[in-house]
Formats: sequence, C-alpha cells, structure tokens
Amino acid sequence: MLIVGESLNGTIPKVGEAINAKDVDFVRKLALDQVEAGARMLDVNAGVAGANEVENLAWIVGIVQNTVSVPLLIDSANPRALEAALAIHKGRPMINSISAEKYKLDAVLPLVASHDCSVIALCLGDEGIPQTPEARLKLARIVLDRAQAAGLKLEDIYLDTLTLGMGTSDQAAKVTLETLRLVRQELPGVRIMLIASNVSFGMPNRRLLNRTFATMAVAAAMGVDAVMIDVRDKAMMAALIAADALTGKDPYCKGYFKAFRAGKLGM
Amino acid sequence: MLIVGESLNGTIPKVGEAINAKDVDFVRKLALDQVEAGARMLDVNAGVAGANEVENLAWIVGIVQNTVSVPLLIDSANPRALEAALAIHKGRPMINSISAEKYKLDAVLPLVASHDCSVIALCLGDEGIPQTPEARLKLARIVLDRAQAAGLKLEDIYLDTLTLGMGTSDQAAKVTLETLRLVRQELPGVRIMLIASNVSFGMPNRRLLNRTFATMAVAAAMGVDAVMIDVRDKAMMAALIAADALTGKDPYCKGYFKAFRAGKLGM
Repeated sequence: MLIVGESLNGTIPKVGEAINAKDVDFVRKLALDQVEAGARMLDVNAGVAGANEVENLAWIVGIVQNTVSVPLLIDSANPRALEAALAIHKGRPMINSISAEKYKLDAVLPLVASHDCSVIALCLGDEGIPQTPEARLKLARIVLDRAQAAGLKLEDIYLDTLTLGMGTSDQAAKVTLETLRLVRQELPGVRIMLIASNVSFGMPNRRLLNRTFATMAVAAAMGVDAVMIDVRDKAMMAALIAADALTGKDPYCKGYFKAFRAGKLGM
Repeated sequence: MLIVGESLNGTIPKVGEAINAKDVDFVRKLALDQVEAGARMLDVNAGVAGANEVENLAWIVGIVQNTVSVPLLIDSANPRALEAALAIHKGRPMINSISAEKYKLDAVLPLVASHDCSVIALCLGDEGIPQTPEARLKLARIVLDRAQAAGLKLEDIYLDTLTLGMGTSDQAAKVTLETLRLVRQELPGVRIMLIASNVSFGMPNRRLLNRTFATMAVAAAMGVDAVMIDVRDKAMMAALIAADALTGKDPYCKGYFKAFRAGKLGM
C-alpha cells in the first residue's frame, strides 16, 4: 500500500500562512516529518485564497524536492499551476486529479497524458458527486475510458471513489464502502486511492472515524493500492499495518512483526 | 449490534481458577463489570479441564442471573451441561453452539429446538473448518437447513463464520472477511455473530488486531448483528461505535455523539 502524506496542503490554515510567508523552514520540516513518519509520496497543494497558485505550487515543489527524495502528488484544480509544477518536478509524479468533469477532461487530461506520471481519477462529474455506488461506477468508467483513450495505462490510474462527510448524511460513508466493493468487482486492474479524512469533517473525534473508516475501506476493496492520510497519526498508521496483514497482503505478517518490534503499533 | 461479553470463560486461567474455587465474588464482579462496560448479553463457559462442567455451568448461570439482568449465552460442547444450565436459566438465552458436525446435529440441535432460545451456528463440519469461503457457505446452508427443519426461526440463528488465527496462516483473516461478504449476499435474513479475538491468537498486540479485524468484518458484512468481545477493551468499544455509524446503522450518528459526550470514544 502506497502511503501518501496529506499535510502539505495550503487549505490547512497554518500551511496556508507558511506558503504566504514563503516560510521555507516550515515546508522543509513538514516534508521531513512526513517522510520520517512513513510517507512514500507527499501531496503538495498550494491553494491559498487570493494568492498566486501557479508561482506558489512551483515554489513548494522545488523546496520539497530539495529536501526529501519521495515523489510528489501534485494537487491543483488549476491547469496552469499543474503545468508549472510539472515543468520543474524531477522524477515521476502523480497528479491530483482528473475526473469526468468537462473542464478536467478538456484541460487537465491532455496535460497528464503528455507527461510521464500517474494520476488520481475522481468519481465526479459536472453534476457533482453521485449519491449511489452505481452512479459513481458509471463516472469511473467514463474517466477511465477517456484516460486510456488519451494514452494512459490502467496501472497508472488511481481511482478515488470519493467520500462525503458523515455530518451531512449518516449514509455517506456506507455509499463509499459499497462503491469500493463495486469498483473492485467491476473494474479489475484499476488501482484504488483512499482519501479517508473527508468522512469525519465537522464530527467529533475525527481520528477515530478516519482510521476506522480507512480499515473498513481496506476490507470493502479487499486491499487498497494507495492511501492519503496524516502519516503523523500513529494510531492510523498502526491500524493500516494491521489491516494490510488482515487482508493477507503481508506475507507471514512480516511487516506487522517488524512494526511491532519498532514500537509502531502502540499499546 | 448486540454486544456480548466474552470474559466469563473457564478456559481463561484466572476464570478457571475462580470456578474451581467456587469464588462467587469473582464471578459476580466479572458479570457486573461487563454489564457496566456495555455488554447486553454475557457468554458463560465453565469448561475447566478435569472439573465437573455440568455442575459448574449451572452454578455460574445461577450466580450471574442473581447478579445482572442481561440474558446469557450458554457456552458448552457438552449436551448435559447445556441441559442443566437451560433448566435453571430464567428468560430467553442464546446457546453456543450448533454446527454441521454430526454429534451437534444429533445431540445439541434437538435440545435447542425444544427450548425457547436463540443459537449460534458455526460454519464447521466433521472435517473441521474449511479453508475457503465457498466451503464455509456450504456448511452454513447445511446447519441453517437442519436448524429450520427442527423448528428454529431464521431470526434466532446467529451464524459464526469462524476465524482462524493469523499466526497459523497469513490468509486466515481474509478468508473470514470473504466468507462474511458471501454469507451476507447469499443467505438473506440470517443473523451474523462476530467472534473477533481468535484472529490474534499468538500474535503481538492482540487488541489492535482484534479491533481492526472487528471493524473490517463489520464492513465486509455491511453490519454484523452481534459481536462477542472483551467489552472492557475501551478502544474496541469505540471502534465498534464508529463502525456502526460508518455503515449507516446509527441514525443521525446519535449513538456516536452520545458516546462522545459520555467520554467513551477516547482520544
């Protein structure tokens, strides 16, 4: 399971302030801390209201790549910001994201297809996020078909089935779990990216919900290929190590025993 | 989800000693502690090597029912011990267990059918626990058919898909998760009882594995009807409250918010 650190995100107030202040030390430390905690890829998002995202995203990519050696997940809805970041990124990044929305298919997909990269594909269309697993599967098929027609390989497309907050509907998480099961069954070969933290938006004790949801998602998909989380959340990391072993993805439970000996499984 | 406390079990050394010593205070306290911690049914098992189980099981049933008001899960492989316990049990118990084994069908099923009770049905036959989900489903069909033919109602049968320890096979938990999914799909109306703690036998950090597995099982079955756990394990209880909400079984997340306000969700 590819572990992606979610924390270098300008929509988080402290990170947004650091981006506006061009605080190099803050960005470096947050990159180092995440890799130290187990991240094998880092999401970078420079979306700060009123700021120059094109400039800021390239700035943050440069700093992070001068600090750590993991690849980046370049996260922007702005094609010009993506283009500027891709121009300076060393190695093979992932792009966050394409979808079945018209502007993404028209403006972002060609950019992705013309670079050597992988990509997150959202189950999202111009009418928003569908309420049923079947409708999300339909959008997944559209974006996968279009991406493959544009030249992307199936194994480079990480599907995000999307998760709405439980605070808006007590059925929100269930729909995502059912979508994960359906996608795994109907779309063999596609990779799955789980982004867990939206589920708990506005709820108390978010970390309990996030890690419980993440392990349930692993069960629903019988293994996810990538997960974007706060890697500094030790209980989340321990839960994912356990979930990996419990879905038979950890031969002889070696990873579990290693984490135990390293004191990473907590109490 | 019916929460069953697993701790009054003579195979646990301290409990076995208390049974041998006829330590009434120990049994009373363990019953009270479990109900206080949230158990709505208590398993009672008087299986101590070399002791008189017929006498001991009736003794423990009497004490527990004089102490707490929750129904009991009468747990024995000995038909005479079950009969003696049923004779003195007040109210409607559950029996642990029947299976597709010949002696259980011949000796335990008639006893269950002649009493007003519910029962756990194991996916187990005379050849032991099958290695594949399909073979476990086949045994589930046999025991369900026989139990219903004997007069039991479907809603009184709690299927236990069984869980082998991960220490014996790194695929053991996965087989159970897949069986839960299959059973939910193929046997509509049957209730599911999850017994989580076997999965971690012989492994380090058992509680992490138990609670992660329990929430994954809830996802695989999209809700379980009953769960047998150590109810004094606060992290397990919090994880199950979260899992219930995440499968849409907790309208408006009221149970989750209530547990949060009561300080039951931990950090």
